[in-house]
Amino acid sequence: MFEFEVQHRDGRARVATFNTPRGTVQTPMFMPVGTQGTVKGISPQELLDTGSQMILANTYHLMLRPGEHLVEAHGGLPGFTAYPGPFLTDSGGFQVMSLGHMRKITEEGVTFKSHVDGSVVNLTPERSIAVQEALGADVIMAFDECPPYPAEREYIRRSLERTVRWLERCQAMKSREDQALFAIVQGGIYEDLRALSLDLTLPFGTPGFAIGGLAVGESKEEMYPAIAFTAKRLPEHKPRYLMGVGHPEDVVAAIALGVDMFDCVYPTRTGRFGYALTDDGRLNMNSSGPRTQLQPLDTECDCYACRHFTRAYLAHLVRAEELLAPRMLSLHNIRYLHRLVERARAAITRRQFHSWAQAWAERYFRGKVPLWFQEALETTTPA
Amino acid sequence: MFEFEVQHRDGRARVATFNTPRGTVQTPMFMPVGTQGTVKGISPQELLDTGSQMILANTYHLMLRPGEHLVEAHGGLPGFTAYPGPFLTDSGGFQVMSLGHMRKITEEGVTFKSHVDGSVVNLTPERSIAVQEALGADVIMAFDECPPYPAEREYIRRSLERTVRWLERCQAMKSREDQALFAIVQGGIYEDLRALSLDLTLPFGTPGFAIGGLAVGESKEEMYPAIAFTAKRLPEHKPRYLMGVGHPEDVVAAIALGVDMFDCVYPTRTGRFGYALTDDGRLNMNSSGPRTQLQPLDTECDCYACRHFTRAYLAHLVRAEELLAPRMLSLHNIRYLHRLVERARAAITRRQFHSWAQAWAERYFRGKVPLWFQEALETTTPA
Repeated sequence: MFEFEVQHRDGRARVATFNTPRGTVQTPMFMPVGTQGTVKGISPQELLDTGSQMILANTYHLMLRPGEHLVEAHGGLPGFTAYPGPFLTDSGGFQVMSLGHMRKITEEGVTFKSHVDGSVVNLTPERSIAVQEALGADVIMAFDECPPYPAEREYIRRSLERTVRWLERCQAMKSREDQALFAIVQGGIYEDLRALSLDLTLPFGTPGFAIGGLAVGESKEEMYPAIAFTAKRLPEHKPRYLMGVGHPEDVVAAIALGVDMFDCVYPTRTGRFGYALTDDGRLNMNSSGPRTQLQPLDTECDCYACRHFTRAYLAHLVRAEELLAPRMLSLHNIRYLHRLVERARAAITRRQFHSWAQAWAERYFRGKVPLWFQEALETTTPA
Repeated sequence: MFEFEVQHRDGRARVATFNTPRGTVQTPMFMPVGTQGTVKGISPQELLDTGSQMILANTYHLMLRPGEHLVEAHGGLPGFTAYPGPFLTDSGGFQVMSLGHMRKITEEGVTFKSHVDGSVVNLTPERSIAVQEALGADVIMAFDECPPYPAEREYIRRSLERTVRWLERCQAMKSREDQALFAIVQGGIYEDLRALSLDLTLPFGTPGFAIGGLAVGESKEEMYPAIAFTAKRLPEHKPRYLMGVGHPEDVVAAIALGVDMFDCVYPTRTGRFGYALTDDGRLNMNSSGPRTQLQPLDTECDCYACRHFTRAYLAHLVRAEELLAPRMLSLHNIRYLHRLVERARAAITRRQFHSWAQAWAERYFRGKVPLWFQEALETTTPA
């Protein structure tokens, strides 16, 4: 159970299989986000059809509504949501922190006001684990604090030390053998604090490790050295999960740095806003161009939307504010992310990741590949 | 082409096949409404999966946005919407009339302000047919005036006479052999005016006839005698289409009176509002009951929602305002209407329509079957 087997390597990038109680997934993988127990607008069958493997659900949201016990009464998330594969739940920490002034952090945990009904709620490491055990995901996350950006070095240090103490309490609370608890490495963009977090976290020997606290407002130039440094020190034979990251360019660059798992609301959120992801960059369906174009969103895509609809039709749905528009753009964007990691896996298997990623980036960035992307490739996959 | 073959009769109710260029449909049938070229939230594949046959699209909406020529550039509605079966387009008349003070009616046609951009638009019988030929549906409707309820008798008489003159212009304008033009009988709730409309309209010998001008605010006690009178005088060997009617109880009662075709936004609209149609009546998913119920919406239904989700999960989606909620409730409601006409067809075929409809109504109305329903059954299907 929870065996992680690296099958191919190309520089630091790797292709692996990760065994979970509800099935074996292939990494690198992208996890669609089902915040409230549904990937917005998408059916479980469509998640399977687009090549989804593991789905992320949010502890914070489900705890407040409908409550973890209703999910438990369905036999956990697969019974509740009807998605029959593996799940990962976050710990609730990130969402609570993002409430800002509405919450208070102590050594014990976090107190906050529910966004649903305004009631005062406590979330502690113990409660987070209890909720995640009721939700029944295959992978559960340690309760952590994700400091905002920017934050003072000293605050980040104290916070990450408390996160380690919370990790200890999470591990002590955890009782289910069929769930893997992943620890989260913090430390912001500071190499010495990342090193401290790694020193304190790695000894817990959890079956996987996450890189937390990034993609919260810092620049790419600040984020990538932190990813590179952290990923390099994480165990070779355990999955590495970069939390909350999922723009196509970040997925490709972080795979080069040895990251295995990604999640992000980006494909569904940008879809709801009328954007389609393609190898040529993001297509704005609100602009006038697509309104008369009779080709699909993406001629290389095999999703339902690309097999059935023209850009002109989808642009009409966007303008007419029809429900099918966010649904089809979200579906396409999820498939785009899955196809992207599938192509990355194939390139790693062929030991051609560097040239594949370089060619992908030349087209995606229209010839202007940024330095941070170039560096992520160069330092990790020698030609 | 457009052959209508009655296969079974039970009282005035009948089961028939209707041949169209894009396939043969079975009547009685319910047509989901794709106002803007999409049945709100539902994919073409789901329309097929739920047993949809013919889809209605609105001339008024598509003419204004995206414009009929873009639809024509896709080869018509099947190419544009990716629904591969037969279509019916309305004439635009009903929508224009419902604009109220924003439109002006003359002998020539109607002038109105576009709800999309406020521009002044003319719609005449000739333009309606031209647009409908560009949209390319299998069945197209004559441009008519649907008077409001209540309206003065004298206004309704003058209006229906003008509608007959417009029908003449529609027939003169029509050029495509692969489209059937249906005439529309008006006359409000007045038997003598319905008789006048029938006298003036039937000689046109169109391949189908619609009953228009009902379900616009009058009571059931006013509507049903008008349906009964009109349907009885319509030709036996041509389809009879009751426009804009599609509540379950009206579908069952009007089938008893010999109606073959129905359309209504009700299943999708009530679904978006959080209601599910069942044989026990309308289930309000906003109420507290369903929130803890682990059974499907409808244990007798075979739709995707009923095969995969509990009421508790769907009630959670409704409360959380998730996109999957209107989608799944609309899907279920469309399937409910299709299953209803399928069961009606089976009962007619067995010559047990009266007892089937009686049993259905006892349950649906919880023992309090209204007189208008009872009368619709009694006058048409002697036991």
